[in-house]
Amino acid sequence: MTDAPPQIRTAPPRRLARAALDDYALVYGRSVHALDAELGATPAPPGLIDLTHGDTRAFTPPASALEDYAAGLEENTEAYTPYRGSARVRALLAPRLAALAGVPVDADRELVITPGSQGGLFAALSALVEEGDGVVLPDPDYFANERIVSYLGGRPLRLPLEQDDDGMLGFAGEDLESVAAAEPAVILASNPNNPTGGVYSAQATEALAETARRSGAYVVADQLYCRLLYRDTKLTQIGALPGMAERTVTLVGPSKTESMSGFRVGAAVGPAGLIDAMEQVLSLASIRTAGYSQQAMRHWLAGDDEWLAERIADHEALRDKLLARFRAMPGVRVRPPAGSSYVFPDVSGTALSLRLAGEGGRPGDDHAVAVALKRAGVLVNPGYQFGHRGRGSFRINFSQDARRLDDALDVIERTLADAG
Amino acid sequence: MTDAPPQIRTAPPRRLARAALDDYALVYGRSVHALDAELGATPAPPGLIDLTHGDTRAFTPPASALEDYAAGLEENTEAYTPYRGSARVRALLAPRLAALAGVPVDADRELVITPGSQGGLFAALSALVEEGDGVVLPDPDYFANERIVSYLGGRPLRLPLEQDDDGMLGFAGEDLESVAAAEPAVILASNPNNPTGGVYSAQATEALAETARRSGAYVVADQLYCRLLYRDTKLTQIGALPGMAERTVTLVGPSKTESMSGFRVGAAVGPAGLIDAMEQVLSLASIRTAGYSQQAMRHWLAGDDEWLAERIADHEALRDKLLARFRAMPGVRVRPPAGSSYVFPDVSGTALSLRLAGEGGRPGDDHAVAVALKRAGVLVNPGYQFGHRGRGSFRINFSQDARRLDDALDVIERTLADAG
Repeated sequence: MTDAPPQIRTAPPRRLARAALDDYALVYGRSVHALDAELGATPAPPGLIDLTHGDTRAFTPPASALEDYAAGLEENTEAYTPYRGSARVRALLAPRLAALAGVPVDADRELVITPGSQGGLFAALSALVEEGDGVVLPDPDYFANERIVSYLGGRPLRLPLEQDDDGMLGFAGEDLESVAAAEPAVILASNPNNPTGGVYSAQATEALAETARRSGAYVVADQLYCRLLYRDTKLTQIGALPGMAERTVTLVGPSKTESMSGFRVGAAVGPAGLIDAMEQVLSLASIRTAGYSQQAMRHWLAGDDEWLAERIADHEALRDKLLARFRAMPGVRVRPPAGSSYVFPDVSGTALSLRLAGEGGRPGDDHAVAVALKRAGVLVNPGYQFGHRGRGSFRINFSQDARRLDDALDVIERTLADAG
Repeated sequence: MTDAPPQIRTAPPRRLARAALDDYALVYGRSVHALDAELGATPAPPGLIDLTHGDTRAFTPPASALEDYAAGLEENTEAYTPYRGSARVRALLAPRLAALAGVPVDADRELVITPGSQGGLFAALSALVEEGDGVVLPDPDYFANERIVSYLGGRPLRLPLEQDDDGMLGFAGEDLESVAAAEPAVILASNPNNPTGGVYSAQATEALAETARRSGAYVVADQLYCRLLYRDTKLTQIGALPGMAERTVTLVGPSKTESMSGFRVGAAVGPAGLIDAMEQVLSLASIRTAGYSQQAMRHWLAGDDEWLAERIADHEALRDKLLARFRAMPGVRVRPPAGSSYVFPDVSGTALSLRLAGEGGRPGDDHAVAVALKRAGVLVNPGYQFGHRGRGSFRINFSQDARRLDDALDVIERTLADAG
């Protein structure tokens, strides 16, 4: 033989290349993937305070979850559940999820237990998005959304968000008209919004629903944080609006409010045909949600009003302190979250940002700010991860030990002031 | 407005339609998905004995797994791990997986912890298969393989398997030439093979490796069952053959031999670039393997020789009894599994099969046989699920309580004899 054997192909399949969001390079000079890799490789001092996720030791899972998990492991009858999840756990959850989402839920047909709400997000989008489909994505929104849509070959249609002084969310009518004109097949939104903690006003929710009805689109409502709402905030369940139950899948889970992320469990409720399709995706991607972990949900959403009120009050106190501290920092603008444990300050006017812009950075270069903060000892999520309108901001998860959060804020204040 | 609003689209995206394997309808009259649905809807008597998976109460997880899990939950520091899995657990597993797979394994670069070995399978194929790519799939093989490849838009290239009287696997040279001529991008095989329990001979493994090298193809080696081998069976690690480490990803996990399926954990070792890509897929599909579940692997593969010998001996005794009973049933042909807890008898010559064929069924209609067995009280996996060459056979997982397995065999014997 004179021919050399063929080389192994090292270029990724199109789906992965798309998911790296290379088109962000037009704005940021590098793909999101490359920016993330640089932040990941940035060295940090000992004792880095990680504010990219909640601290499950500061806010622990409910005792009942640990007891239920132990009981399930002891019984050891649910290692192998149906792909859509344990019949027993679904029967327990269906009425509670119906109360939460404001729609009837058939435990056998309209409910699937998912590996976290992210597993539900991937399954729902995989079951809905045909290649080339337009998908409405608010800007900013959860960073995996655009990546999954792009992985699937969908066309992201960005809808710019506005947040008012009460933390409520809306958008300009002409922006909604613009994305509606692109004939979306799916409208996807987190509510409360990740990263801002904003909650859609009743009017904004109704406008999204009307767009879905007019476009023949499905709605994927990521309501992972819908139990952690501050003061009198009302969250309008989009799936409960007229004509919406047949076209809405609602994703929820105990990973955040209940600090149960380590179990990787969540649930999705929606029309039976879509739940069937989501189960098929799940059966390919990981067969089922871990059978033992599912058991930790036996008492989820069950008569925990007092526990929930206390958890909300604890987070509201942290939120208020955080807002006061950020408002005292020169050049920082911040909106109050109406729900969730996220805050998303815009730091593009700080001394650090202005110096970085002068040094050949770009105005409001949140990537460079996040790199500087990591070097100083605090890890945050830079705003570009959430969309183009995240520029100049960063996200903090304030579900933390209060003293550690204070320490982090000291570092942030010093670093943003460019005080070395 | 005079126009009615557009209807919601109910047809699934192409990826899901492909995964339903509708082309099987050419052979079976219905898609695999439709056949599965009919079997699922078939009523069963009380006390159905489910032989489609192992009984985790008959063969329990190792005590160390439960202790490690409990310790991890108590420490509660690993709810959020890197997407590729806990650094601590990866550091523990890397040398053990290196010993198992016969290749060096860098804990940071060449190892990813996956949601079961299925999570690794989905991530590896998603990271390797470009639309239109040929993927070699032995026939029969694990039922999810063809579905995932089809979901991803790959072209399944079926390689017919032959199993000898020692349970070892091979294939005809011209069949391998035929699939090699189609220029596969990936060669995928379970070893020990699911559903037959066959193990590839050293010669067959070398032939697959040579085909991969000649074609520039990657190899996905699903070795979920590679610790449960009978008597003197030797399994040749394809990734350890010359020139193969750079093109092989090996999937393993404690779900079967160690009965740890309820935790949904597994591991994949392979070249760093591919592990990076698999981590990206995992980050989209479910973020990470459940952080708490990962802790149950701390002592996996660590100094458990005695425990393993006992577990193998227990399964070998069940295997031998099972083979003797099947060989005594008229019209049944069965090969001994060299590994795994699967047996895959061909029942196309039994009175039941012959009657069903005469009743307008097809000769060797394993679907109709499985439906009859379920009505009689035993659930098995019909052979069509594993490929066209599964026709006429069914799969049993014999990791069961011995008495329950006896009861099931009584039902099977009576039903196959068509004795009512």
